[in-house]
Amino acid sequence: MSHQNKPAVAVIGLGSMGMGMACSLLREGFSVAGCDINPAARAAFAKAGGAVADTAAGAASGADIVISVVVNAAQTEQLLTEEAGVIDAMAIDGLFVSCATMDPAIARRLADAVEAGGRHYLDAPISGGAVRAAEGALTVMASGSAAAFARAEPALDAVAAKVFRLGDAAGQGSAFKMVNQLLAGVHIAVASEAMVFAASQGLDLQQVYEVITASAGNSWMFENRMPHVIAGDYSPASAIDIFVKDLGIVDDMARSARMPTPIAAAALHMYLAASGMGMGRDDDSSVARVYATLGNQTLPGGKNR
Amino acid sequence: MSHQNKPAVAVIGLGSMGMGMACSLLREGFSVAGCDINPAARAAFAKAGGAVADTAAGAASGADIVISVVVNAAQTEQLLTEEAGVIDAMAIDGLFVSCATMDPAIARRLADAVEAGGRHYLDAPISGGAVRAAEGALTVMASGSAAAFARAEPALDAVAAKVFRLGDAAGQGSAFKMVNQLLAGVHIAVASEAMVFAASQGLDLQQVYEVITASAGNSWMFENRMPHVIAGDYSPASAIDIFVKDLGIVDDMARSARMPTPIAAAALHMYLAASGMGMGRDDDSSVARVYATLGNQTLPGGKNR
Repeated sequence: MSHQNKPAVAVIGLGSMGMGMACSLLREGFSVAGCDINPAARAAFAKAGGAVADTAAGAASGADIVISVVVNAAQTEQLLTEEAGVIDAMAIDGLFVSCATMDPAIARRLADAVEAGGRHYLDAPISGGAVRAAEGALTVMASGSAAAFARAEPALDAVAAKVFRLGDAAGQGSAFKMVNQLLAGVHIAVASEAMVFAASQGLDLQQVYEVITASAGNSWMFENRMPHVIAGDYSPASAIDIFVKDLGIVDDMARSARMPTPIAAAALHMYLAASGMGMGRDDDSSVARVYATLGNQTLPGGKNR
Repeated sequence: MSHQNKPAVAVIGLGSMGMGMACSLLREGFSVAGCDINPAARAAFAKAGGAVADTAAGAASGADIVISVVVNAAQTEQLLTEEAGVIDAMAIDGLFVSCATMDPAIARRLADAVEAGGRHYLDAPISGGAVRAAEGALTVMASGSAAAFARAEPALDAVAAKVFRLGDAAGQGSAFKMVNQLLAGVHIAVASEAMVFAASQGLDLQQVYEVITASAGNSWMFENRMPHVIAGDYSPASAIDIFVKDLGIVDDMARSARMPTPIAAAALHMYLAASGMGMGRDDDSSVARVYATLGNQTLPGGKNR
């Protein structure tokens, strides 16, 4: 425990989500050590009052709680290998909180590795976006042992508005997150399909937005993403390649479970097309530009790539 | 005009939507003649205080406004043929309001027929369901001439909470409705896909509902329909065959416009499977039972047909 009677926390990965979480913890009086491969992120966190380490093991050194907010399963696994040394660096009996979206089977494997090292693991994917991360108002879809939850509670209180307790084993939180990603990914793709279909019928897209958001065809993603299409602004809030990854994981899980998911598969291939056409780092609403190319329609902004 | 200085109205088609609209008009002091092929519907409307006719032309006789709330384009077209004789029965300069969901190209053809007969046409598909129809609180997606809108206004005020004015020609209202149906149909199908995918991962479906409705993966249809799946209750609020029809119209329009809609097509084929498996008249959330069959999962209620 730190001298303030709060657990010492490390946050590994200071992107938009990790930075928001780390700053929320600082605001609540935690001592926080941060680490990122990007020097600009490290400098920004130092300026916000955080301690900064050059390596993940350095940040994790003696930490009661290590929160991993890296991009994917591979980066999370890298932290836990002997070279990176995060497990051994942590306080004995400490807690590793994994926030990256990943296949539940991998989450279970990572939990085994952490627990074999004498530490606890919380499977804790997050939802809500950068704004709510900065506000300490994320949603957390968590699973793990009672001991892991008990250790996590003060830190989760600082970063989340809502913590779902979804089971006592690693993998369950990740499985709920993948159900959400299946729906979110399909909803952005079909919103794009519907908007370009509307364009093919000569409809005014702003009027389509007003009618749909007041009707039974609405979704959270339609309402959130289609303003980007109407503005012709594809600067990334969240990138196409995130859904190439996440619907890819859904596809892996579906194949493994012999569970056909034809609609998610159709959506995945639209994200693959967007990425293949060079828009992988653009906003995920760029799927609309793929549809505009296929249907020979012109969207606001005019460029289909 | 009727003796109460309100236009005389006929409502053709006294199903759950038409009955609600006809009763809302009675409540607002209109004299309303109703007609339906089902004797029980005619008796119920008479009991509610409406005038009842045996034929569509009888109901339409002398009416200033005829509101057609039949099931589809074919039934609407049937009303306007010489045999049914609705056009000639209406008051000269009267208004025909068409509420059935249909291909915009057919709406334009029907408008031409009505206008050639010296009457006005409002393309006015509706949204909101039986409860809001009974409350006089529907959403109307309307297009037509200024003269048609002027004549429609008092009746629309009685049946709708929100009237979108979507253009000055028949077809535009129907096109907006089809964009809504594309999204609504896909959202029910992918909600079903996600729920059975969740079941394949061993997740508790009630917990999935709580997490998703609080997350970015939510849609109006997920929230509205998935309680049927969790309850294992497929008694029809709205039937599978409605989306076989409506996504079929979307597919017709997409083919005609050379506008690929792969996600809507994937969803259409799931509704076709449900209908082919004998569930055409069951609730549209029965798509979940198709997925359960394909993925060998057991849903609440236990029966996949």
